[in-house]
Amino acid sequence: MGNVRQLGELGVIRRLRAAGGPPGLGVRTGIGDDTAVLEVSRDALLLATTDLVVEDVHFRRASASFHDVGWKALAVNLSDIAAMGGRPRWALVALALPASADVEDVDSLYAGMREAAAPHAVDIVGGDTSASPGGWMISVTLLGEHSGTPRLRSMARPGDLVAVTGSLGRSAAGLAALEDHEGGNARGAIGSEALQEITRAHRRPLARVSEGAWLCQRPTVHALMDCSDGLATDLGHICRESRVGAAILLERLPVSAAVLEAARAFGRDPLEWATGGGEDYELLLTCEPAGASELATGLLGATGTPLTVIGEIRAGGPEVTWVGSAGKPVEIRAGYEHFRG
Amino acid sequence: MGNVRQLGELGVIRRLRAAGGPPGLGVRTGIGDDTAVLEVSRDALLLATTDLVVEDVHFRRASASFHDVGWKALAVNLSDIAAMGGRPRWALVALALPASADVEDVDSLYAGMREAAAPHAVDIVGGDTSASPGGWMISVTLLGEHSGTPRLRSMARPGDLVAVTGSLGRSAAGLAALEDHEGGNARGAIGSEALQEITRAHRRPLARVSEGAWLCQRPTVHALMDCSDGLATDLGHICRESRVGAAILLERLPVSAAVLEAARAFGRDPLEWATGGGEDYELLLTCEPAGASELATGLLGATGTPLTVIGEIRAGGPEVTWVGSAGKPVEIRAGYEHFRG
Repeated sequence: MGNVRQLGELGVIRRLRAAGGPPGLGVRTGIGDDTAVLEVSRDALLLATTDLVVEDVHFRRASASFHDVGWKALAVNLSDIAAMGGRPRWALVALALPASADVEDVDSLYAGMREAAAPHAVDIVGGDTSASPGGWMISVTLLGEHSGTPRLRSMARPGDLVAVTGSLGRSAAGLAALEDHEGGNARGAIGSEALQEITRAHRRPLARVSEGAWLCQRPTVHALMDCSDGLATDLGHICRESRVGAAILLERLPVSAAVLEAARAFGRDPLEWATGGGEDYELLLTCEPAGASELATGLLGATGTPLTVIGEIRAGGPEVTWVGSAGKPVEIRAGYEHFRG
Repeated sequence: MGNVRQLGELGVIRRLRAAGGPPGLGVRTGIGDDTAVLEVSRDALLLATTDLVVEDVHFRRASASFHDVGWKALAVNLSDIAAMGGRPRWALVALALPASADVEDVDSLYAGMREAAAPHAVDIVGGDTSASPGGWMISVTLLGEHSGTPRLRSMARPGDLVAVTGSLGRSAAGLAALEDHEGGNARGAIGSEALQEITRAHRRPLARVSEGAWLCQRPTVHALMDCSDGLATDLGHICRESRVGAAILLERLPVSAAVLEAARAFGRDPLEWATGGGEDYELLLTCEPAGASELATGLLGATGTPLTVIGEIRAGGPEVTWVGSAGKPVEIRAGYEHFRG
């Protein structure tokens, strides 16, 4: 059967889902979406999600402070609850760390988590600590509540438009800048405001919690998820789970001036960051074409966050077609794959 | 401030609890007990607990199969819910593993988890997978429900009796046998039935779920927790959280014939395993003296599990006094400490 590198992350998840059998009592949505939807009482749905942050896989000490790492460990979970339109409530933190770890670093990690949690009134209510023979590993589980209808990856329909909040590629651009240790010639060519925008997007991503809650109250919104692994990978999940295809117009992708500036400095293609970079934690959704512009106007008014239509859902296979400026299909690089890393 | 080895696991947890401030809305019990108690609706309490299992800290591949590791990762969390008297419902599994990991081993790990979960109708509803630059790391979060009054570590009162379910030291004896690779002379001296009892107790511990639920319905039961880090460490938690002391009669400790046999074979003190070995996952409780024998009879009748009174709670400092056969205080070795391990 080989090793997990050959099977890939999605292969591992599929295998686990198949082996687990059908969902049991009280499980409205189990493995498949990032967040489980559970029936705890007649009038409330519980959301539960978990995300791992592993040293030298998700972060390197050279380019991230422990405060950043803590912030991000919480933020990625907030984003999973946001993608369901839920209200985040309680976090549990399991932490494995070397015995030589500085207590100050542990303090910074938790301070970062609490800072990311505070605007959402999320409490850290429990956890576990263990020694680690290797590096740091942080596993955060976040519980949330939902009083409406959670949106899933499987809810896209042919004819839907595809839209995304905010802008794409900032986190990947920020990582490139943070890891540019070789004299910093390329980074030095980026203006300070642009540099701050992209590095902050990477170090302290903001989960779209109020945006998710607002969007989930609109019946024209069908599928919803967060963009954590890169647009190509994440839209691929929607297509597979919904058994549809998608066509994305590359020139419609919202890419900020700061990302364009960084791409010029590094001699990189900004579209590669926007489609494959990941970690932007924007919300990706599909919606009915009628009323899509009202949806964008409404979201902007309610939360200050723009919504950009970038393509459409089509009947057929789970492929995503990327359409270039000449209206012709274009090949793009895929997102991050854990075990091929 | 130094490193976490100097501070110790309890020091780290205390620090996190102090930095976190008072528990927020809907949090009935936060950091301090192993399991958080959360108010999700007017008629239901949610229990949430998380436990890490780290390769070369919690298990070694030489002495545990991945099936065993999966079983145990689930069982330790079941035991945390059992210690509250709750009903376990849903598990989330975060898994970090090397890219070279065999897919068969991943399958075995999950099969072990599902086998431990099945008798309790617990579903694995979600998770996360990641590459690990080091060894395997499994973080399981278990959610449960409670319709009564959860018992906490802080509920012991002076004059209470201290009692424990089942028997102690079997897991530590089993580990000694499993790690006896040097020709197996000592292990060879243990009869096959005894060997099976102790190694099974270590490899496939059973969480006392129905026992916890039954005990939580008795008003004479005050403090309750599970014995995971060893009696000395765990009773120390009860004393600290309840601001009481305890006196334990060593000759009352329930130690099975199999453990005595293994101790003879290895030339070890069985009481050291019983007080400091840990991982027995028995329930440790304090109760009113009146009706204690009816409590034991009732538990045995309802679940088949014996309950043994081993000592009493005293007013005063958080110290545990160990009383030898001559009625005199005896020094014993403490339980497992993660960062000094």
